[in-house]
Amino acid sequence: MQQNTGISGYVLLLTIQFVFIVIFAIYTDYDTDLRPKDGAQSEPGFIVPKYGHFQDIHVMIFIGFGFLMTFLKRYGYSATGLNLFVAALCIQWAILMRGFFEMEHGTIKLSLTNLIGADIAAASVLISMGALLGRISPIQLLVMGLIEIVLFASNEYLQIELMKIVDVGGSITVHAFGAYFGLAASFILRPSKENAKAGELEGASYTSDIFAMVGTVFLWIFWPSFNSALVDGPEQERAILHTYLSLAACTVTAIILSALVSKDNKLDMVHIQNSTLAGGVAVGSVVNLLIHPSGALIIGTFAGALSVIGYRYLSPKMLEKMRLADTCGVHNLHGMPAVASAFFSAIFAYFATKEAYGDSLYTIFPGMKNSTMLEDEHEMIIGGFGRSSEKQAAFQLLAILVTVSIAIVGGMFTGFVLKSPTFRPLQTHELHKDDIYWETPDGHEYNRDEHLQ
Amino acid sequence: MQQNTGISGYVLLLTIQFVFIVIFAIYTDYDTDLRPKDGAQSEPGFIVPKYGHFQDIHVMIFIGFGFLMTFLKRYGYSATGLNLFVAALCIQWAILMRGFFEMEHGTIKLSLTNLIGADIAAASVLISMGALLGRISPIQLLVMGLIEIVLFASNEYLQIELMKIVDVGGSITVHAFGAYFGLAASFILRPSKENAKAGELEGASYTSDIFAMVGTVFLWIFWPSFNSALVDGPEQERAILHTYLSLAACTVTAIILSALVSKDNKLDMVHIQNSTLAGGVAVGSVVNLLIHPSGALIIGTFAGALSVIGYRYLSPKMLEKMRLADTCGVHNLHGMPAVASAFFSAIFAYFATKEAYGDSLYTIFPGMKNSTMLEDEHEMIIGGFGRSSEKQAAFQLLAILVTVSIAIVGGMFTGFVLKSPTFRPLQTHELHKDDIYWETPDGHEYNRDEHLQ
Amino acid sequence: MQQNTGISGYVLLLTIQFVFIVIFAIYTDYDTDLRPKDGAQSEPGFIVPKYGHFQDIHVMIFIGFGFLMTFLKRYGYSATGLNLFVAALCIQWAILMRGFFEMEHGTIKLSLTNLIGADIAAASVLISMGALLGRISPIQLLVMGLIEIVLFASNEYLQIELMKIVDVGGSITVHAFGAYFGLAASFILRPSKENAKAGELEGASYTSDIFAMVGTVFLWIFWPSFNSALVDGPEQERAILHTYLSLAACTVTAIILSALVSKDNKLDMVHIQNSTLAGGVAVGSVVNLLIHPSGALIIGTFAGALSVIGYRYLSPKMLEKMRLADTCGVHNLHGMPAVASAFFSAIFAYFATKEAYGDSLYTIFPGMKNSTMLEDEHEMIIGGFGRSSEKQAAFQLLAILVTVSIAIVGGMFTGFVLKSPTFRPLQTHELHKDDIYWETPDGHEYNRDEHLQ
Repeated sequence: MQQNTGISGYVLLLTIQFVFIVIFAIYTDYDTDLRPKDGAQSEPGFIVPKYGHFQDIHVMIFIGFGFLMTFLKRYGYSATGLNLFVAALCIQWAILMRGFFEMEHGTIKLSLTNLIGADIAAASVLISMGALLGRISPIQLLVMGLIEIVLFASNEYLQIELMKIVDVGGSITVHAFGAYFGLAASFILRPSKENAKAGELEGASYTSDIFAMVGTVFLWIFWPSFNSALVDGPEQERAILHTYLSLAACTVTAIILSALVSKDNKLDMVHIQNSTLAGGVAVGSVVNLLIHPSGALIIGTFAGALSVIGYRYLSPKMLEKMRLADTCGVHNLHGMPAVASAFFSAIFAYFATKEAYGDSLYTIFPGMKNSTMLEDEHEMIIGGFGRSSEKQAAFQLLAILVTVSIAIVGGMFTGFVLKSPTFRPLQTHELHKDDIYWETPDGHEYNRDEHLQ
Repeated sequence: MQQNTGISGYVLLLTIQFVFIVIFAIYTDYDTDLRPKDGAQSEPGFIVPKYGHFQDIHVMIFIGFGFLMTFLKRYGYSATGLNLFVAALCIQWAILMRGFFEMEHGTIKLSLTNLIGADIAAASVLISMGALLGRISPIQLLVMGLIEIVLFASNEYLQIELMKIVDVGGSITVHAFGAYFGLAASFILRPSKENAKAGELEGASYTSDIFAMVGTVFLWIFWPSFNSALVDGPEQERAILHTYLSLAACTVTAIILSALVSKDNKLDMVHIQNSTLAGGVAVGSVVNLLIHPSGALIIGTFAGALSVIGYRYLSPKMLEKMRLADTCGVHNLHGMPAVASAFFSAIFAYFATKEAYGDSLYTIFPGMKNSTMLEDEHEMIIGGFGRSSEKQAAFQLLAILVTVSIAIVGGMFTGFVLKSPTFRPLQTHELHKDDIYWETPDGHEYNRDEHLQ
Repeated sequence: MQQNTGISGYVLLLTIQFVFIVIFAIYTDYDTDLRPKDGAQSEPGFIVPKYGHFQDIHVMIFIGFGFLMTFLKRYGYSATGLNLFVAALCIQWAILMRGFFEMEHGTIKLSLTNLIGADIAAASVLISMGALLGRISPIQLLVMGLIEIVLFASNEYLQIELMKIVDVGGSITVHAFGAYFGLAASFILRPSKENAKAGELEGASYTSDIFAMVGTVFLWIFWPSFNSALVDGPEQERAILHTYLSLAACTVTAIILSALVSKDNKLDMVHIQNSTLAGGVAVGSVVNLLIHPSGALIIGTFAGALSVIGYRYLSPKMLEKMRLADTCGVHNLHGMPAVASAFFSAIFAYFATKEAYGDSLYTIFPGMKNSTMLEDEHEMIIGGFGRSSEKQAAFQLLAILVTVSIAIVGGMFTGFVLKSPTFRPLQTHELHKDDIYWETPDGHEYNRDEHLQ
């Protein structure tokens, strides 16, 4: 029974891979920069712009998220292997879904830009995966990813292109979206009352905690690239500086608070692995604005504190009162800091002036352009051009509201889909355990020895 | 006895290091770009071209290959330590051997280009090491590396400079060469019939499998850099795009097939660690051609399936019928996908036209140049310039034939050298075990507790 | 009692974080490049110069040092977590302390350059941490970092700006400073005679040794970026080439010597993890000079041998005779190779001529400029401009003498501060053990099972 469901699910996924090939064959082509050029070839030593940023983000998606999720004592194969599987499927799907919104003459033109966008889209799915880690099957996970990418791409286009909100680091479109989508799905898939306790396997071993630090530290290191990949020039360098400072202050604050709120004032690896990163999320929507270096430190400090307090006090309550499990605590790392970031973006947009920003005001906040500044005079956006800074601030708040709403509705819908008996939901003794889906070298001995791990 | 053999081998290697110093002193010098310049210095912020690509490849060679080989439960010191040792020796030797073919006025001019070439050459040795992992001593390994680099450099020069074949990602010159060289040596070193079974240590532990994923994922991430390092402009960006897409499709296919062909339809970490990478190999020789994005997906899908099937059905047969052991399964990750890549390159060369490629036809396929296009009219290549696309296709097939032949003959020769009693081949109980060559913290207890690992 | 000291220490650190925010608010601002520009924005694809180098160094500081220190069997949480904590605090403090020396109109102008400088400053603290690893508390560690950054920044300014010494790879200002500072503090904190033996936990487990290799290999890979980050053009490419060659030769030599000097001629992971890196330190002060590729190999070979011999013979003597513990052996990896590098720099400075270096002589050795070459004729440096090459050589020796002196005095002072009962020094049974400061999943069982690890 289990095997058969598994097989049909895998065969379905294989079919989807073939469908992707057909869609790519019909709808995609090289962007102009990738086509052969006659005459003078590119200058020697020319490197595709942003390739370094792309590779940094690539490390975050595949090493960062993958290893961050290895913290469970018996779920490391799934963390690293399914992270790779989900991301490899989602990046193909994201290239298509994001591309459909920006086709030219019926063709999606591919270049490195699409790969960066696809990697970022995959991040939102991996965040949702974190909320559900160990509690859904590989097939459920991939189905979730396929649904989520559709909604992600739609919401991203809505916020960035149609509503012209500012969110260079993706706090609203990626972090908030991914976190609340995953939490909503988790809520629908919540266990019955008798099974709502954290199981014996829902914790770390000494070794698995150190593997998780590989993920944490690579995320920490390359976060400035994530937050600065989509901007250029002074904005890019500000994004790098702000992310660096916010993460530094966040790390110091999170680790100190970890000791202050934990049992016996000992440090808790959960906080070190996750809350130290909240500064990267919280600064994401304002990362290219003139927030001053000290502003970045304040945001980081706030985010570190918020995240630790969330892990320590809020998550247990959510599990107890709502049976809302959140394996990796994405609400504390991605959800709340992202909402905070949206509020920060409203505040800094409110105070943005032509005096401070000069001409860059209109590249940073394209909705503030007058109609005379538009390259295409027929261009329309939701809410119209010529926004005041107050109106832009309101749009920033609207963006987080709409994004979280879409994420929650989409996540709940996905939860209901995954709850269908077709997918054979996992039983309690199968949770957080590689051995259900993986050939494990010592699986037959695992139960006997698990107290020794 | 053992120790003495070891000592003389290590002393020999130390002598070789001193010989390298002397050869470098006599035959190498800085390239012009590295010499002091008078007058205007370079513009601020100028970075050595391709340095980012170099560092990505550097991570693949030293972290990627090193950690990929940690999957054996008791061979992690050797995997990471000997990988570093072998590569550090081979890169020096490769700078010299590759340099001898391209000396100017009796001097090898060194720049970053030589370092990239040396790293790629080391990759071929590390692939061969994968075939023999755990079954030869450190000294045998290093002797193999010294022989292999000579043949690698010769064959690379033959294929790229003299026969002008297309192989930007090194599938023919690096992957096929390294794999069949290692397999041929493994065949000569095959055990007697009574010892041909896989030993108890020839498998993974739960922890060692996760360490191996560090290698897998870094190889996966930076493979686009490996495949695009030697081209510029549109070719470079196509190489990045194709490798990304091929790996994504390969990963999805390999993981699905892993479940479909494995016992109880469970996923097998061997496939996840290795077969997910086959798409990078299979696209290597065509990575800069106009294969269309969907062509990259098809190649990746094919490679993923080929590799998993190889691991599941072919490797056990090779071991059973021929006693041909292949510890890491390099035949499935590097060998077969590389041969496939050569066939793909013949197909795409066959259909290459001036209409599609424009002037870049002659930079991509230099053998198709007319004599009028040559900068040096006396330049000669094997088979002559002015090739038709059909003839170029035939040369692509010749290239894989010649490369595999040289690799097999060279590997067998090396196998006979290593079989010499001088090197004291390992005995059965010494296989796949760090404790023979390393001080291990718990070595004295290992045998007693090994069933617990 | 323990908890209370801990709490007040953590509250103190939190206060310091708030003080940092205030100082940043008052004294820092964006550099001109980060300010909004009117008119033409930067060209598309423009990346902040040196951002790739910065990220490579960032990996070294946070992954490299962090994981290198995981080698202790029961100190991996501290190695990775406290590395992150200390570095995150020190980079903020280093931006301020280094900035105070170079303020313009009372403001520290921030750009990527400051972040690179801050990361390098943090390296010196992490080196000192290596000497004391497992023997001081988190609070003591952070207090040490705060003191050390002050002295580091002062000495760096003294050597580079006021004495105009050559030290592009930071061997003198970073490696020698950090090592002797840590050793001096360790000496003051030396245990009583009865407790001077290495404890049971002062060693590796099989798994922890492989984690440490993650750190080693990333340090190895990116060392060329560390050594070339502060130079441009031909100097940068020479720095890359020299570091690559020095590390390769060092690795081969260190691993061979490890076998030759160890018990039963087995390889020792301590040497592989550390001594293979000594070539990067030893070449640091001469990395941009015309040392010829073979010179880099000779320096690397020397450093590898020196470091292994230090680990094998010198460190045990220092522990036995002086009770001077050096957990990571920073004296062998950073201390002695850095002093050697200073001597090499004196030798190569001595033989530096206008004929060999051309105009770059004066950018490399600014102290050799005549007064006519100065942009600001009132500029003054210690010892004066117009130095002969012999005088520059003497200054190189003076630099290492002054640096080591400041480090030793500063380290001893810090040791006395940390010895204060305020900080509740660790007791013997608390050494090298995460469980004192961390919630550990299996802590309550650790003592019982520790012989199995």
